[in-house]
Amino acid sequence: MPENKEQKLILGVDLGGTKIAAALATAQGKILARGRSSTRAQAGPDVVIKSICATIDRTLAAKRLKPSQFLGIGIAAAGIIDSDKGKVISSPNLPGWHEVPLRDAVEQRFGIPTYLGNDATLAALGEWCFGLKKGIANLIYITVSTGIGGGIIAGGKLYTGACGVAGEIGHMTIDVNGPKCNCGNIGCWETLASGTALAREAVKQIREGAKTSIIELVNGDISKIDAKVVDLAAKQGDELAKELISRLGYYLGIGLVNLVNIFNPELILIGGGVAKMGDLLLQPAIKIVKERAFSTPANAVEIKPALLGDDSGILGAVAFVLERSKNYRR
Amino acid sequence: MPENKEQKLILGVDLGGTKIAAALATAQGKILARGRSSTRAQAGPDVVIKSICATIDRTLAAKRLKPSQFLGIGIAAAGIIDSDKGKVISSPNLPGWHEVPLRDAVEQRFGIPTYLGNDATLAALGEWCFGLKKGIANLIYITVSTGIGGGIIAGGKLYTGACGVAGEIGHMTIDVNGPKCNCGNIGCWETLASGTALAREAVKQIREGAKTSIIELVNGDISKIDAKVVDLAAKQGDELAKELISRLGYYLGIGLVNLVNIFNPELILIGGGVAKMGDLLLQPAIKIVKERAFSTPANAVEIKPALLGDDSGILGAVAFVLERSKNYRR
Repeated sequence: MPENKEQKLILGVDLGGTKIAAALATAQGKILARGRSSTRAQAGPDVVIKSICATIDRTLAAKRLKPSQFLGIGIAAAGIIDSDKGKVISSPNLPGWHEVPLRDAVEQRFGIPTYLGNDATLAALGEWCFGLKKGIANLIYITVSTGIGGGIIAGGKLYTGACGVAGEIGHMTIDVNGPKCNCGNIGCWETLASGTALAREAVKQIREGAKTSIIELVNGDISKIDAKVVDLAAKQGDELAKELISRLGYYLGIGLVNLVNIFNPELILIGGGVAKMGDLLLQPAIKIVKERAFSTPANAVEIKPALLGDDSGILGAVAFVLERSKNYRR
Repeated sequence: MPENKEQKLILGVDLGGTKIAAALATAQGKILARGRSSTRAQAGPDVVIKSICATIDRTLAAKRLKPSQFLGIGIAAAGIIDSDKGKVISSPNLPGWHEVPLRDAVEQRFGIPTYLGNDATLAALGEWCFGLKKGIANLIYITVSTGIGGGIIAGGKLYTGACGVAGEIGHMTIDVNGPKCNCGNIGCWETLASGTALAREAVKQIREGAKTSIIELVNGDISKIDAKVVDLAAKQGDELAKELISRLGYYLGIGLVNLVNIFNPELILIGGGVAKMGDLLLQPAIKIVKERAFSTPANAVEIKPALLGDDSGILGAVAFVLERSKNYRR
């Protein structure tokens, strides 16, 4: 029976608004088995927690593992997470979740030490532990999809703040006169630089009479326009779509300038669905950083797509178990 | 002769655009002697460096101390500072300073290990080491005067980033359509929430015909309006002045929301000349934080005036010597 921490196994779970992904992994981040199910978020916390446990069961099926072979279970969840208490305080993608003790529910079910953290925060840790080829001290990870989330590695360790909710970089005001954000703040970065913002702007321009193949790609159904459709149109050469993505890159750059001036990081990694748009999005963003940030930190930072792709959440959860189990005292 | 580190002496210097302040202090932050002179920044680096050395000489006069009695000399300077190389890269208040090797010049003159850092960054360290009554892990210090500077304590240590220039929080864009900043960026926090912004807005409103006693306080000379005059008018009950400071507090609050959402700190300390305006400025700022930041970090943070007043720079320089001398290898 392996007793060495390096030989123990870790179960990582990524709880999103639409799907639950789980992976059995080694402490070196090698994935041995996977499980997946849909979240059915509308059914409420109890059903979702059962679904998480069932997904874990399926991931471990046929492996005949004992609890003692595990270092722990890590769960990455979207929203405001109290890591110390193991609770989901609230989550935009999980309706009805308020102060839900998710960690303890899973820990009791499996009898394995369990840890809960914010998905973007843990993704930063995952990229840092398992994605990078060489160690760096200061890394900002951002995920751009329907919203913008972030995670911070500062001075060689995960930065989580006073109550574990640091890194809400999508909710910094970049336009004091801008649109109201779902979070209650005004002109947040994610209101201008997320996939949601891109789709909203496309719809607006189409309603104003802009010519574009976007509308054909959704068969005239304007309600079906999302970031993916705009991306597809751009890749097919649609001028409006290319312009909209370039404009999104501009707003992405504005927030990156802020992060470069504030954090002076070695590296900024950009993950999430929207980041898959590649250079059409990233080049205008990087251009703004070079033009507007202080030259010393602008010259010191590398900005590039995240390294772990869709596995950043589950591998982040795995890394979080490694990080937290050092101090396990429950 | 005291050989114990705790018994050694430290010389702290605060190099500003108008004055040089120096203090001889114990490792516990007790100030034993002070020196002061004007910077004469227009005379260029060589003259200023001589002036720094003369100020140190005067501070130490009649003390008959040997270099071996010192743990080090710390220098806090405004601008972009390369701490590792000991150079002032550039400084808005020191014309003609480009890559000036200030640290080595002082170190060679006195034969005492010398350390150079950004003034706001070091002030954060000073407040954290010598101002606080109890230890906390995460502190943001901001200084609001002609501009806005900042320093970050993250996870129980000074955060300086990849090349020591982290903390330029005054240069985060909060108004993407806002005025151009001296730094080259657009709509920086300091273009809207600094003393300079306050004076500019007062002048604008007076030119547009606003009734106010501000103009009487400067004997009709509009070019003499600065933040202090507006503050004085407000304290005498002038309605426009009170409104302008309240508006400044609003913009101060916008940036604080960003810092609260990003850093989830236990404490934000506000120093600098403008912060001396007190509640008239801070109450509207804190109100915005309570209204707009996520409730978990908003409830966790205390926002209050800095604790060391005008000594934050020199005591920050003293604290920096303590922090850096642990790893002294030159």
